[in-house]
Amino acid sequence: MPRYKLIIEFDGGPFVGWQRQENGPSVQAAVEAAAEALCGEKTTVHGAGRTDAGVHALAMAAHMDLPRAYGDGVVRDALNQHLKPQPISVLSAETVTDDFHARFSCVRRAYEYRIVNRRAPLSLLAGRAWRISTALDADAMHDAAQVLVGRHDFSTFRASQCQAETPIKSLHSIAVLRSGEDIRIRCEARSFLHHQVRSIVGSLAEVGRGKWRKSDLRAALDAKDRSACGPVAPAEGLYFMRADYEKS
Amino acid sequence: MPRYKLIIEFDGGPFVGWQRQENGPSVQAAVEAAAEALCGEKTTVHGAGRTDAGVHALAMAAHMDLPRAYGDGVVRDALNQHLKPQPISVLSAETVTDDFHARFSCVRRAYEYRIVNRRAPLSLLAGRAWRISTALDADAMHDAAQVLVGRHDFSTFRASQCQAETPIKSLHSIAVLRSGEDIRIRCEARSFLHHQVRSIVGSLAEVGRGKWRKSDLRAALDAKDRSACGPVAPAEGLYFMRADYEKS
Repeated sequence: MPRYKLIIEFDGGPFVGWQRQENGPSVQAAVEAAAEALCGEKTTVHGAGRTDAGVHALAMAAHMDLPRAYGDGVVRDALNQHLKPQPISVLSAETVTDDFHARFSCVRRAYEYRIVNRRAPLSLLAGRAWRISTALDADAMHDAAQVLVGRHDFSTFRASQCQAETPIKSLHSIAVLRSGEDIRIRCEARSFLHHQVRSIVGSLAEVGRGKWRKSDLRAALDAKDRSACGPVAPAEGLYFMRADYEKS
Repeated sequence: MPRYKLIIEFDGGPFVGWQRQENGPSVQAAVEAAAEALCGEKTTVHGAGRTDAGVHALAMAAHMDLPRAYGDGVVRDALNQHLKPQPISVLSAETVTDDFHARFSCVRRAYEYRIVNRRAPLSLLAGRAWRISTALDADAMHDAAQVLVGRHDFSTFRASQCQAETPIKSLHSIAVLRSGEDIRIRCEARSFLHHQVRSIVGSLAEVGRGKWRKSDLRAALDAKDRSACGPVAPAEGLYFMRADYEKS
């Protein structure tokens, strides 16, 4: 059975998340339905990562097997045709070898979190960013965030319902970048815990507001205790940006 | 009566345009209703420019008179409160002198047109950009666009229903900038004709596709004839970016 790697962009607003769930429409189920419409058989679409309800993706990676071979462009265009009018776009489909697995072969994942730091509510970015009225010190956020880089027990920044085997993860990099009222928090790791990015962003916002210092963030990390976490940032500001593979 | 200058961001999707019309909701009418809710009296909100249905604004300038003086922050916050949940945000309100007029005092207007040049349909930018599948040559578009700079009779790029007294306008600058699949066309002028930017963008897209050369664009301009125009670009890719004033 030919295997295809997909790169998928989606607006997370209308979905319960990437993963198929009984309580509402998911991106995974939508892509699976489109694949079935293309080939006439049920198939499972495996994503590089799960995302929460409301989280967006610029380039989620996924793979699926089809019973017959189609040209890459045919797969991409047919999926997009069947996905209409849902806000899910297959940017590319590419034939890959059977040992490629979107989740298990992934060596690095990148997320971006968008904050708009202004008083006025959002109109063009409504549902696409977290608006924070209080003036944030992005330099202080960036500086404090560096204490999180490296291999740590991230229990503080882990949802209680997280199913990962261990809270120990390696954060490869995190950067807080400001351009005018626009603040972007970019982080990369091999893998992330459930709610890890949103928990980190919520805590960094406390630093930005001046309520926490760098030492408070370090103490929260060292506590290895969920109750030491700042408020979890809303899902709507989070974007799955990229999944990297050794070869694909 | 105190006069306020407003800077307004809006998602043009749900509106018939900036200007009050009988056939549907307008941004102007929404801001006027919010102002009436604030002060209890009807007032007219004057914008720096009209926009078509579906056209967005990052920073439309406007002014209005209120029967009583309020603090600038009070005006901004109260308008935003009353504008909910419509996708219109008052970014700032500022007390100005009586000789300030958002339309007549404006010395330069800036628009940006967004094209996404890719095969896949848009999800996150649906309704916010023009998707063109054919590969566009942005450098050729930029080069050709320079024939439009300066003072010309823009009859070719003017809607038949345009109410301007003359088709002669001075285009201060136009630039076509590509970053990956993202193409932005920025133009500035003291004022624009009805559909001028969308007509220019539609014609430049013909250049980008290789159907027109620079000489064809020049010939279209020189024709001073609406029928020489390329297809008009859709409204949803257009953004009113900025209105400049000598003093404000």
